[in-house]
Amino acid sequence: MPFHAAPQPVTRLIEELSRLPGIGPKTASRLTYHLLRAADEQALGLADALRQLRERTQFCRVCFNITEGQPCAVCSDPGREQALICVVESPLDVLAVEKTRAYSGQYHVLHGAISPIEGVGPDDLKIDRLLDRVRSGGVQEVILATNPTLEGEATAMYLQKQLAGFPVLVSRLARGLPVGGDLEYADEVTLARALEGRSQM
Amino acid sequence: MPFHAAPQPVTRLIEELSRLPGIGPKTASRLTYHLLRAADEQALGLADALRQLRERTQFCRVCFNITEGQPCAVCSDPGREQALICVVESPLDVLAVEKTRAYSGQYHVLHGAISPIEGVGPDDLKIDRLLDRVRSGGVQEVILATNPTLEGEATAMYLQKQLAGFPVLVSRLARGLPVGGDLEYADEVTLARALEGRSQM
Repeated sequence: MPFHAAPQPVTRLIEELSRLPGIGPKTASRLTYHLLRAADEQALGLADALRQLRERTQFCRVCFNITEGQPCAVCSDPGREQALICVVESPLDVLAVEKTRAYSGQYHVLHGAISPIEGVGPDDLKIDRLLDRVRSGGVQEVILATNPTLEGEATAMYLQKQLAGFPVLVSRLARGLPVGGDLEYADEVTLARALEGRSQM
Repeated sequence: MPFHAAPQPVTRLIEELSRLPGIGPKTASRLTYHLLRAADEQALGLADALRQLRERTQFCRVCFNITEGQPCAVCSDPGREQALICVVESPLDVLAVEKTRAYSGQYHVLHGAISPIEGVGPDDLKIDRLLDRVRSGGVQEVILATNPTLEGEATAMYLQKQLAGFPVLVSRLARGLPVGGDLEYADEVTLARALEGRSQM
């Protein structure tokens, strides 16, 4: 008895969407059928946005953040402090720090963190280029703002060692209770760090 | 102090992805930055799949399923039973029924369900075209396979009334415990339906 699958353009989009992180085949099907029913403008708008993303963006040659022009808006902004570099894992982290409106220095995007399990070593990250920037002078402080995860901590430790020979202050973001969080629900490690790092009132 | 947002192509893709159902701004950002780092082939493949979906698919003029040609593969297959129509809400439901390999009749896709809250009435669905098919003869049974939700039930009730004047059997999918499910975790309504619909062993 002959049974029928979805038309090829449908299964192809389901496959392409399933390759995205966190999107399984069920979600991919749901999205595909949503796009089939949505106005033409929505699917084609998304297709166009994807194309533009690849065609119009590149990595900044100084800090490796995403940018349209060279160097990026932060690197070419004379109003930003030049002596401060905040080292982050990804461009999303730059956005997060910018949103705080509490930082006005430079950035350096590593594009990942050291992870032996995933086969990511120091040479796979933009570490050499960070050392070049520090070597060329004018930098007073490097803030290690990698994630508070095993990989992020390992990367910070590695960077700290690499930067030891340079006349720069190396700092790390404070660990402690998240603002608005509840002591009761904090994990032990976070609570221990919050105790360790307590400050006088 | 000047702070910087992401480049325009990045924010645009985040916006477009956020318009998809079930995808919030955080997931959209994560997907966007994944696509930035992925091989060119992935983002462009997705863009191309979206374009093809709109350009190469249409609704079958008989059953309103998604198809590349007219009529669709099921409607034009002489091996399928002609006297049986399974009425479903969406093309995804057709796929689900086909996957069972337990049905060899025709389909009719309503493209939604009656929902006063969302402003969807009978005229917004492909109900007239279903009645036309039944009216033109040759149909012995209409299986109402709308979802076991409030909207799906309301749609089934409405269709039952509309079909009452025709010499066709109208049936509804069985409700009961899902295979592999656990009695303990079944909701009361499902369990009540399973009791009601119990069969002799």
